[in-house]
Amino acid sequence: MTFLKNDIFIKTLLKQPVDRTPIWMMRQAGRYLPEYRKVREQAGSFLDLCTNPELACEVTLQPLERFDFDAAILFSDILTIPDAMGLGLYFTEGEGPKFKRPIKTAADIQALPIPDPNIELRYVTDAVSLIRKNLQGRVPLIGFSGSPWTLATYMVEGGSSKSFQKIKSMMYNEPRLTHQMLDKLAQSVALYLNAQIEAGAQAVMLFDTWGGMLSTEDYLEFSLYYAKQVRQLLKTDCDGQKVPTILFTKGGGLWLESMADTGYDALGLDWQTDIAQARVRVGDKVALQGNLDPVALYAEPQVIADKVKTILQKYGNGSGHVFNLGHGILPDMNPEHVKAMVDAVHEFSLPYHQNAM
Amino acid sequence: MTFLKNDIFIKTLLKQPVDRTPIWMMRQAGRYLPEYRKVREQAGSFLDLCTNPELACEVTLQPLERFDFDAAILFSDILTIPDAMGLGLYFTEGEGPKFKRPIKTAADIQALPIPDPNIELRYVTDAVSLIRKNLQGRVPLIGFSGSPWTLATYMVEGGSSKSFQKIKSMMYNEPRLTHQMLDKLAQSVALYLNAQIEAGAQAVMLFDTWGGMLSTEDYLEFSLYYAKQVRQLLKTDCDGQKVPTILFTKGGGLWLESMADTGYDALGLDWQTDIAQARVRVGDKVALQGNLDPVALYAEPQVIADKVKTILQKYGNGSGHVFNLGHGILPDMNPEHVKAMVDAVHEFSLPYHQNAM
Repeated sequence: MTFLKNDIFIKTLLKQPVDRTPIWMMRQAGRYLPEYRKVREQAGSFLDLCTNPELACEVTLQPLERFDFDAAILFSDILTIPDAMGLGLYFTEGEGPKFKRPIKTAADIQALPIPDPNIELRYVTDAVSLIRKNLQGRVPLIGFSGSPWTLATYMVEGGSSKSFQKIKSMMYNEPRLTHQMLDKLAQSVALYLNAQIEAGAQAVMLFDTWGGMLSTEDYLEFSLYYAKQVRQLLKTDCDGQKVPTILFTKGGGLWLESMADTGYDALGLDWQTDIAQARVRVGDKVALQGNLDPVALYAEPQVIADKVKTILQKYGNGSGHVFNLGHGILPDMNPEHVKAMVDAVHEFSLPYHQNAM
Repeated sequence: MTFLKNDIFIKTLLKQPVDRTPIWMMRQAGRYLPEYRKVREQAGSFLDLCTNPELACEVTLQPLERFDFDAAILFSDILTIPDAMGLGLYFTEGEGPKFKRPIKTAADIQALPIPDPNIELRYVTDAVSLIRKNLQGRVPLIGFSGSPWTLATYMVEGGSSKSFQKIKSMMYNEPRLTHQMLDKLAQSVALYLNAQIEAGAQAVMLFDTWGGMLSTEDYLEFSLYYAKQVRQLLKTDCDGQKVPTILFTKGGGLWLESMADTGYDALGLDWQTDIAQARVRVGDKVALQGNLDPVALYAEPQVIADKVKTILQKYGNGSGHVFNLGHGILPDMNPEHVKAMVDAVHEFSLPYHQNAM
């Protein structure tokens, strides 16, 4: 076990005292960094990059060289599981992810295997081990997966969607079949995250990118229920260390109370949700992660600092807030503006932790 | 003044007793109807159809021939005001609305005129008069406009957007300039809706399609503030009749309490928001309109009926609920499925109004 030199991210997720607010950024390893674009070009396709542990490790570490982030996040895609199930993931320029063999019939669902992450997703666990080793305890490493519902949307739609007509039609007309698929996905996601934890991930996050497209009752039945299943199957102690868990439903601000009751240590907040109100609503049950509008990073550095101050002030005193964007950074962002955000969090969060130690 | 034969829509918005729940449907005059597609083909472009009062009247009335809707809504586009301001609205197949001359500079904003709706938007007020006359008091006619914020997004982005980078950058970096533009838009929208009321609209609705893309504080400052300005400028009595007002922010479920304090008679709900919780949150301040997931209409008719029952039951007893979708109907919908929804509202809403009269 390497000693963790900076553990404020882990401590904050567990609501233990820290001396400032930690920060990392969704999609922090990505296209806005010229050094990422260089490796990406060298790798070939985006998938070639994801499936090459050495290169995935290299781009995971890049943002830490530039910015004082308090966590690293595995560089990977949210759709590795359906790909390992045999659906044939590929990417087309400007259209996002697609599957060669989307789910269409009951037979397709019955035939879905539950992948063994140490075999079919070995490139991910290898990347996790390698990153963890190369981090040398500098900051913790976050593992992640798409949520069962979010994976199901891509698997049935065959790619991205605006209206989610196919998956929702299945959900309305064939609820039992949809539950069968989601149940297999929950098992697969839990195995996958546990394998990441065993390989070295020190916290894990479930990305429910499309839960927010559901009605409240459908969200509870088809998305949150399976996020909770995953949580119950997770191995949250590894080598005597607690592995905190984060649940993020984009567009889920209406459902924070229910989300806080599922056993995750923290909830991710999109930028629409007011973090002061969110804190009141979830009470002491969970920590919160977020929630600057990613588009606010187009503003001038002074404005970015003001926006950071507002969010820190809204969360208020004490531990339990991991600073982040409310969604991934946009690919044409100026890295200097990221620096303005990071510096502002470092500088202006200190007063909120004065009685920490 | 024609006597209104069916006034349950108006009465419900004012929370007066009725004997069943009224229903209409966002985008009820539209592409899912073969008779609409025929007129559209005859008209030429979508804009040719909007700007021709006779044809706009014809398509407005079409859905009433098929379904027992309790209101008609003016057939028009939400971007008529920026077009009347000189921005040059046009449509490209599959890409939605665009402007030839989007707003780019402070000078562009200072040069924006406030259109006289009875001159530059005469085709709209003419359509309203004609529809009102042809309705012969069968059901009330709803007028509408895009909200100031939503109009501003299109005017600055030059069309639809995913990230709203341009308008948000302006909002963050040049808040005073953005407020100047929104102030002009609020004045223009109020004049426009008042002209529709004078021409015969019996209720008006403000569509804030993109308010839900803002953080809570930005929503309050840049979207809701101007929706309230519009409300304060509205003429809500016409020929001795009260003209109810509806505010709809798609993705605004987090902000219902603030929205209920702006003087509108009713709030539109998207499908994500739970209508039972919404009713508790807004109390007696406003009526509610919504909120079936538009994609639920792809389900089998029996499932549609069940979904309708659930929403009616969630709202519960008494007046104050106008049934609707949570967003516009999708263009490839089977009209028979719309009928299943309408029939279910007629049949299953009766018990909730038993002590009405």
